[in-house]
Amino acid sequence: MMSDYAPLIAAVRSHHPLVHNITNYVVMNITANALLAVDASPVMAHAVEEMEEMVSLASALVLNLGTLSTPWIEAMKRAAHVASQREIPVVLDPVGAGATQLRTRTARELLELMQPGTPLTIRGNASEICALANESVKTRGVDSTLASDQAIAAARLLAEQYGAIAVISGAVDHIISPDRHVEVHNGTPVMAQVTGMGCVATALLGAFGAVTGDRFAAAVATMLAMGVAGELAVGRSEGPGTFVPHFIDALASLSPELITTHARTTTR
Amino acid sequence: MMSDYAPLIAAVRSHHPLVHNITNYVVMNITANALLAVDASPVMAHAVEEMEEMVSLASALVLNLGTLSTPWIEAMKRAAHVASQREIPVVLDPVGAGATQLRTRTARELLELMQPGTPLTIRGNASEICALANESVKTRGVDSTLASDQAIAAARLLAEQYGAIAVISGAVDHIISPDRHVEVHNGTPVMAQVTGMGCVATALLGAFGAVTGDRFAAAVATMLAMGVAGELAVGRSEGPGTFVPHFIDALASLSPELITTHARTTTR
Amino acid sequence: MMSDYAPLIAAVRSHHPLVHNITNYVVMNITANALLAVDASPVMAHAVEEMEEMVSLASALVLNLGTLSTPWIEAMKRAAHVASQREIPVVLDPVGAGATQLRTRTARELLELMQPGTPLTIRGNASEICALANESVKTRGVDSTLASDQAIAAARLLAEQYGAIAVISGAVDHIISPDRHVEVHNGTPVMAQVTGMGCVATALLGAFGAVTGDRFAAAVATMLAMGVAGELAVGRSEGPGTFVPHFIDALASLSPELITTHARTTTR
Repeated sequence: MMSDYAPLIAAVRSHHPLVHNITNYVVMNITANALLAVDASPVMAHAVEEMEEMVSLASALVLNLGTLSTPWIEAMKRAAHVASQREIPVVLDPVGAGATQLRTRTARELLELMQPGTPLTIRGNASEICALANESVKTRGVDSTLASDQAIAAARLLAEQYGAIAVISGAVDHIISPDRHVEVHNGTPVMAQVTGMGCVATALLGAFGAVTGDRFAAAVATMLAMGVAGELAVGRSEGPGTFVPHFIDALASLSPELITTHARTTTR
Repeated sequence: MMSDYAPLIAAVRSHHPLVHNITNYVVMNITANALLAVDASPVMAHAVEEMEEMVSLASALVLNLGTLSTPWIEAMKRAAHVASQREIPVVLDPVGAGATQLRTRTARELLELMQPGTPLTIRGNASEICALANESVKTRGVDSTLASDQAIAAARLLAEQYGAIAVISGAVDHIISPDRHVEVHNGTPVMAQVTGMGCVATALLGAFGAVTGDRFAAAVATMLAMGVAGELAVGRSEGPGTFVPHFIDALASLSPELITTHARTTTR
Repeated sequence: MMSDYAPLIAAVRSHHPLVHNITNYVVMNITANALLAVDASPVMAHAVEEMEEMVSLASALVLNLGTLSTPWIEAMKRAAHVASQREIPVVLDPVGAGATQLRTRTARELLELMQPGTPLTIRGNASEICALANESVKTRGVDSTLASDQAIAAARLLAEQYGAIAVISGAVDHIISPDRHVEVHNGTPVMAQVTGMGCVATALLGAFGAVTGDRFAAAVATMLAMGVAGELAVGRSEGPGTFVPHFIDALASLSPELITTHARTTTR
């Protein structure tokens, strides 16, 4: 039986959504290539002077705090405002929230300035999701830790507070809305040894979110695509270095059938 | 019979031209590696304080508007001014011209500030070339569209207006001067699925332009090198991810003989 | 017999040191992946507003001048000050010192502001080390030249002046303290055809420096890890493009035994 989520990869491939990324320097190349591999169309632009025009062309906006600085924060805020007015999907990746006040505060300010009704998805590791929801957790840099009940509670809190889909990525991915919770069990430990796998998921959340009104399904489909591509790639690679090109190849090869064959989800 | 253009790869390899790039974040790594693969010497520097000294060391200047912002525009203008005074080759890649006013305006301002006689090459996809020549075309982000008669007319206009070589890259590449027009039919569709292939061509235009006074021949040789390397790489790769490392290997393997064997050009 | 230096790779793997990098755009991705491949934990952050907090989380600080600009210099200075107060290892890569005054001056200012007793390592190619020690050498961009007696003298001068370990990388790597000098003869010429190999060494110097009080041993161990990984990778690759993923795989495979088997060092 076809997974409910798997057909969305075909929708991305046929719609070529333009995804505007304001993301970090480390992952720009791999996220652009990942978006191209699913036949989405990536744009990277951060000059505040062109934010209004560029966001107006886009089908989704991706905001990633990985290498934050003042001019980029200004651009992110302007872009979030325009996207919120246009009601296009916005994805926030609060990289390093909890590690520094600048990151936690900026992530919250971005969430606060979006109008209710903005189609919003938040993706982070367990530490970042906890830090964003409250200040009781101290992140160690950008490391991920295991998703705990605490992180799931934090994700639910964020989902309710902002009408958002919250995604905790890790060995098991949790996709959480105010009233739904699906786990994705696909993936491979090698992905934790490659920089930017979380950021790639964030970028793909923009692409999948752009092609359906069901953002929860879009988020599950994204994490399935990541996990299945990871499993396909690891068999062809000899370590975390050769994993990367094979992962992009695997993303490029994904079809609804291939995802359905490999998908391992649990509804909680 | 040896192609007229193919020997230029040997000239690049023996001269090791220093190519100064002010380029976008997404492609810095792949363009640096592509330049090294043809035995050129890449420099990436954008601080306005060091522009005069750095451009003075360079054999060519490459300006790429991919991830534009105000401080970078200032550096590009300063660099273009110095390069123009030194009469070293300048290559302009108007990434996203037509998508936002900032990009279209910046590209034109850079063209305007260079003195007549500056050895200038402009490379873009059909939409960007059209947008740069006039405002009747609206680009969709940084996507390429097929080269049309309209784009060829726009390229000729730019060539005449600025004494430039204009290159339209796409499934067929067009190299256009006020009185010459050559098509390069090499390449592979996979190149459109990899971010930065156009930017790599732009960077290599700097390297080839630095080793000959015949900038038209340099531009044809560059697009041949790109296309032939693409054809060699695609046979060794399994998708757009594994294509990239094989493409760099292929660039590193290029010789005049190899280019001549594969070259498919048409003079119009 | 086990090399004196080889066990340090196991220490890096078990301690997962958090290495804070303020580095250049070209190499951010490959340096992050190289750090992950030895089980270190990379952070890239450059906003002056978060420097104090971020450096306080780190076990080592890496400063790389590759794509310098005023806001980044300010962040580097703030970070160097905090690291110096905390007495965590600091690694300086004076990329392009000698090419422009901005780079030479910034490198020296960073050295000057650190308190005596800061565990400091400096890594550059022969030209950069010469330029940093005195102004009699003019660098050609970021090219390396062969390590000469002049560069060794310059490295010793820097080591004495700043209580630093100075590393000259090249076909033979020289690790120099005021009273020690070891040569590492491992490596492969392909590494000079790949952008950022020196910057990767710089980042790994941070990881190895974080796990031992013997910074000289840490520097030798780092250059051995680079050289041995390079030798392992070149046999699996077909050129400088495929070399890169295999190099990361090789780093991920390094053990004390593997390094001991391949290590070729000379004590001078």
